[in-house]
Amino acid sequence: MGSSDLVSKDYYDYSAWYENLEPTKPPKEVIPPCDPTADDRLYHICIASLSLVVMLVLAAFTKRKRLCQGFLKGMPGLLSPMNFLDHTQHKGLAVAVFGVLFCKLCVVVLDPNPLPFVQDSTSEYKAPPVVDILAGAPLKEYWKILAIFYYPALYYPLLACGTLHSQVGYVLGSLLSWTHFGVLVWQKVDCPKTPQIYKYYSLFVSLPQIACLAFLSFQYPLLLFKGLKGTVKTNASEDLDSSYYRDYVKKILKKPAKPSTTSTEKPKLSERISDALKSYIYTPEEVFRFPLKLAISAVVSFIAVYQVALLLIAAVVPVLQIVRAGVNEDIAFLLAGFNIILSEDRAEVVKIVIYYMWCLEVCYISAITLSCLITLLMLMRSMVLHRANLKGLYRGDIYNVYNRQRSVRPSRPALVCWMGFTSYQAALVCLGLAIQTLVFFICLVFGVFLVIIPILYGQNLMLFHIIGNMWPFWLTLFLAVLIQHVCARFAFIKKDAGTRDLDNRSALFLLTYLLFPVNVLVGVLLGVWRILITALFNIIHLGRLDISLLNRGVEAFDPGYRCYAHYLKIEVSQSHPVMKAFCGMLLQCAGQEGGAGQKMRDAEEGIQLVAQEKKPNKVSNTRRVRARWLLLFTLVNNPSLVGSRKHFQRQSSESFLNGTLNRTTKEGSKKDAGQKEEGKEAGKEAETPATN
Amino acid sequence: MGSSDLVSKDYYDYSAWYENLEPTKPPKEVIPPCDPTADDRLYHICIASLSLVVMLVLAAFTKRKRLCQGFLKGMPGLLSPMNFLDHTQHKGLAVAVFGVLFCKLCVVVLDPNPLPFVQDSTSEYKAPPVVDILAGAPLKEYWKILAIFYYPALYYPLLACGTLHSQVGYVLGSLLSWTHFGVLVWQKVDCPKTPQIYKYYSLFVSLPQIACLAFLSFQYPLLLFKGLKGTVKTNASEDLDSSYYRDYVKKILKKPAKPSTTSTEKPKLSERISDALKSYIYTPEEVFRFPLKLAISAVVSFIAVYQVALLLIAAVVPVLQIVRAGVNEDIAFLLAGFNIILSEDRAEVVKIVIYYMWCLEVCYISAITLSCLITLLMLMRSMVLHRANLKGLYRGDIYNVYNRQRSVRPSRPALVCWMGFTSYQAALVCLGLAIQTLVFFICLVFGVFLVIIPILYGQNLMLFHIIGNMWPFWLTLFLAVLIQHVCARFAFIKKDAGTRDLDNRSALFLLTYLLFPVNVLVGVLLGVWRILITALFNIIHLGRLDISLLNRGVEAFDPGYRCYAHYLKIEVSQSHPVMKAFCGMLLQCAGQEGGAGQKMRDAEEGIQLVAQEKKPNKVSNTRRVRARWLLLFTLVNNPSLVGSRKHFQRQSSESFLNGTLNRTTKEGSKKDAGQKEEGKEAGKEAETPATN
Repeated sequence: MGSSDLVSKDYYDYSAWYENLEPTKPPKEVIPPCDPTADDRLYHICIASLSLVVMLVLAAFTKRKRLCQGFLKGMPGLLSPMNFLDHTQHKGLAVAVFGVLFCKLCVVVLDPNPLPFVQDSTSEYKAPPVVDILAGAPLKEYWKILAIFYYPALYYPLLACGTLHSQVGYVLGSLLSWTHFGVLVWQKVDCPKTPQIYKYYSLFVSLPQIACLAFLSFQYPLLLFKGLKGTVKTNASEDLDSSYYRDYVKKILKKPAKPSTTSTEKPKLSERISDALKSYIYTPEEVFRFPLKLAISAVVSFIAVYQVALLLIAAVVPVLQIVRAGVNEDIAFLLAGFNIILSEDRAEVVKIVIYYMWCLEVCYISAITLSCLITLLMLMRSMVLHRANLKGLYRGDIYNVYNRQRSVRPSRPALVCWMGFTSYQAALVCLGLAIQTLVFFICLVFGVFLVIIPILYGQNLMLFHIIGNMWPFWLTLFLAVLIQHVCARFAFIKKDAGTRDLDNRSALFLLTYLLFPVNVLVGVLLGVWRILITALFNIIHLGRLDISLLNRGVEAFDPGYRCYAHYLKIEVSQSHPVMKAFCGMLLQCAGQEGGAGQKMRDAEEGIQLVAQEKKPNKVSNTRRVRARWLLLFTLVNNPSLVGSRKHFQRQSSESFLNGTLNRTTKEGSKKDAGQKEEGKEAGKEAETPATN
Repeated sequence: MGSSDLVSKDYYDYSAWYENLEPTKPPKEVIPPCDPTADDRLYHICIASLSLVVMLVLAAFTKRKRLCQGFLKGMPGLLSPMNFLDHTQHKGLAVAVFGVLFCKLCVVVLDPNPLPFVQDSTSEYKAPPVVDILAGAPLKEYWKILAIFYYPALYYPLLACGTLHSQVGYVLGSLLSWTHFGVLVWQKVDCPKTPQIYKYYSLFVSLPQIACLAFLSFQYPLLLFKGLKGTVKTNASEDLDSSYYRDYVKKILKKPAKPSTTSTEKPKLSERISDALKSYIYTPEEVFRFPLKLAISAVVSFIAVYQVALLLIAAVVPVLQIVRAGVNEDIAFLLAGFNIILSEDRAEVVKIVIYYMWCLEVCYISAITLSCLITLLMLMRSMVLHRANLKGLYRGDIYNVYNRQRSVRPSRPALVCWMGFTSYQAALVCLGLAIQTLVFFICLVFGVFLVIIPILYGQNLMLFHIIGNMWPFWLTLFLAVLIQHVCARFAFIKKDAGTRDLDNRSALFLLTYLLFPVNVLVGVLLGVWRILITALFNIIHLGRLDISLLNRGVEAFDPGYRCYAHYLKIEVSQSHPVMKAFCGMLLQCAGQEGGAGQKMRDAEEGIQLVAQEKKPNKVSNTRRVRARWLLLFTLVNNPSLVGSRKHFQRQSSESFLNGTLNRTTKEGSKKDAGQKEEGKEAGKEAETPATN
């Protein structure tokens, strides 16, 4: 909201100025409102109905399958768009749909006509909606709110078609995505120019959306093709069947190749710098994949950067250019009214004003470029930190990540934060980018007009005059600091037998006393530096949720960081790779035992299974001891699993007391599977999951 | 510099406005420049000569004593103003002199005539010096710089008289402080009003200075009186003789009285709140005294709060009051010129304007009061944290204090930071207070004019209109957040056998997807909240050096915190109470052995002694083992001593190789002293330092 408000204000201020300046000039290029051949209202009525039909077909198809198999009862796969707690599934579909949705949200927030069903007959392009809201246009506000809920529902079938892993789903998905893509492209070709903000703004805004839809239009046929060729197992539990979790477990149980070079010796400065630089560059690792939610966040944040930068440029730069083109000799009178006389010659005044406006434009574009680069760098750094944090928490390294002990288990606030994480990340990136641009722009303008232009032209050397006049003051401060450093180095510290101790104490105390007033003045500079560095750090890192902007002791009061910390809790407690590997193997065994049709599809069910199956084995003492040892080894390496384990045991003892029947039937065949499982986790046996 | 700049600008802006408004009114009260009977120039010439004479007398006296005793060679006590690394000495003198110096510095920075020797014949009260500097008055700048070094030298004898612990010193100190105090009071009684800033400003500025000088005038005679009565041992090593260090050692070696209530159960909310409140209130502890430097910092910071608040009030409030008193019906025309028509009736316009100005004044004074209270609270909290940090570092708890491992030993930057710590603290308090006042003032003005006055008078309900028009938007966001919380609480988390796990995953994923766009808008609010809370936190804590304003990982980039961290290093490595207790006992034994005249005065020499004396004892095995055990016990309890110890041992082995002579002579009698020492530290033997 903040950025749009800002922009609309800029826009109006400048255009008003422009109109005042040149009443005689021809008005700027008038773009007629364009009605695309594919009328938006008609299109949305059609596509909404089509989506509904697709959902009904999918539902009927799912129900038919359910009747055939009698297995998926109580699991309405159609209403579960995707498994957010999954590391291995093909993330493209979900990411693309979220991208489309976010682009649409950007349009809706600024659009005067958010919901296409309600044609606002009066509106050509009147005013940005925020102005409307402030002036009191509650009806439009209601449509806007409705639109916020309408679009997720509209794009939902695009996700649902992919979730079912069926040929029918892929065919319907292809059709839907082609329709969406085709109509959007058609509309944009029909009406590339709109009167809104900047003539090509609406076209540029929908570019990421077009890209995402193109990806979907390509991906669904691809999936269908693979399905026909049989490359993808339909209905397979891709998540738990994947070898990723087993690879991860193998990796962490592997002994470290070699200890790194002795850590006692300090790294060189060049090494430390290169290490610091490397920590900002994200390089993928084979045995680590991001959770789906983080992948979505990254892509949505990237789109957010594009959208905000586009809005900031489109709202200001064309206006600046128009104003610059329209500067004439009247400006000299206007400036004279404010007692600003740049030159006696009016033509020269025009030249100077045009030059200054060009400088402003350059500053503005540089500020946006700088902000975008910094934000992208920060996003990359975030990815590096996300990975480190997730790996640390898997290892049970809670103290390092949170700086205090915390229980990593689901809770109400944690779940709410988890649900909102992607959105919050996107919103903060938008806000951070806008604020960064503003701040950098102000800094650059000061720099250009107070430093660069005066140096180049030798005029307005105000800043240099001030600094020049104060040189004895700066020199004194510099000398005072220098004296302290030199004395500390050579007079007050004696190096003795490899250690350091104070020397010449009385002189040290005397100097401390005498320099007290000068140091107060140095302290003022230090304070200014402190303010600058703190403000800059916080502005640059505003868009990052993975670090707290507050002091170590009160980190949790930063709402962004608090959200991230909670998000990590859910992610780690629910999708620990070792746990998933374990569940996957259990399910595999159960599937082999009960026949291929009875394979279970979800980690949740795997967990249920564990809960029911875990109880004392009736095997020989030696094997039990060995199993316990291997279990212990696994748990020591993955302490965060202990919580879950306790939970399962309690549950199993309860179910034991309740005496459920189905538990006993599978018991016998289960015990060696569990045994083998633990042995595998400890990396002692050869891994042959496909053959056992 | 920042605050004075601000003030001078405010002052001129307002008075200019005032003069423009009322050309017909009589000019404001003219205060004639006042020449006190005790002319400043003459007085300074006299007092500077007097100080010089005092120093010469003291030097002569010290030299005479030195000749008599032949002991203090190489220790020019006169040039060592105080032992900053001392916890026990009477801190009053040093603190008072620093207070006087800081007050003088505040005067010098703003005074157009900083050095009294150079009478500026042209200057009545022309302009604040900062303006001069900007306009280019380099000569005055030189005098100002000279003044910064002149005043510490001028007040130096006040300190030096107390350092010598001699009757002559106390007599001279009394004379000097009486002179300073008397002349200052005389001048202020002669000329209570000055034309500078506000008529009584100069009087109020010197109040803390008068208080400090009064304290000195009282303290020196008291010391003299005590000395005559024999209560104070002249020339005694007060620091190391004091029982404070021994008490401290006894305290830390005492077993904890009882373990506190079982820490597993969580404290109640009320307890946690009261604990948090208590942590902001500093309560003295018997067995912990602050280092001298921290005591000085606290007092100087307190004076800084007074001076900045006084300056802020004196520069703005009287001007506001004068302007308010001078508002007449012309203001209606003036406002109409800006298209602001408050009322048709001109008399009512005057009333409204006066009322608004009164509101501004109230806001300003409230902002200053609030800032002062917060700054004082923060100072108190700092004291609590200083104590906790020092105690923690004495215990060797480096990781908790610094959040990483660091070597606690002197280094060049550490020493520079140690020297400047008091000054930096004072400067940051000044800067922080000024910025806080500005921010709070702006917030209060917004609050009063957008919320309180509209509510009271039912006019200008702009803000409420905006909020009212946006209510569907707010309601949607609120409902979205509420739904997520309610669902998370009741639908998505199942409590099972004491632990919590996720439930209804597909519904959770569906809700997450559908609420994505709404959550983006919630995220914008979260971002705004993040900005507000970060800014507020940093502004409030700007004056505190003991916490970093940056994130946990980059704490050291905050120059204020870096300085504090370095300061602690020096303080802990050089004045560890256990080390001091040890040195004190060693010196006591040496004194008894060598005769009363040969008592050594300084910890430094104690350390030298340790370095020379420490070597293998020729005692029976049992005693040696016992001694080693006790030493180990002491070192385990005070890990930060280990560094020093290693240093001493290396040094002693070197001196052993060099074969210095004087080492061997004292060896025999030393060994049981060292033995006893260690036993005492471990708290195993009765403590009888005065009788052995």
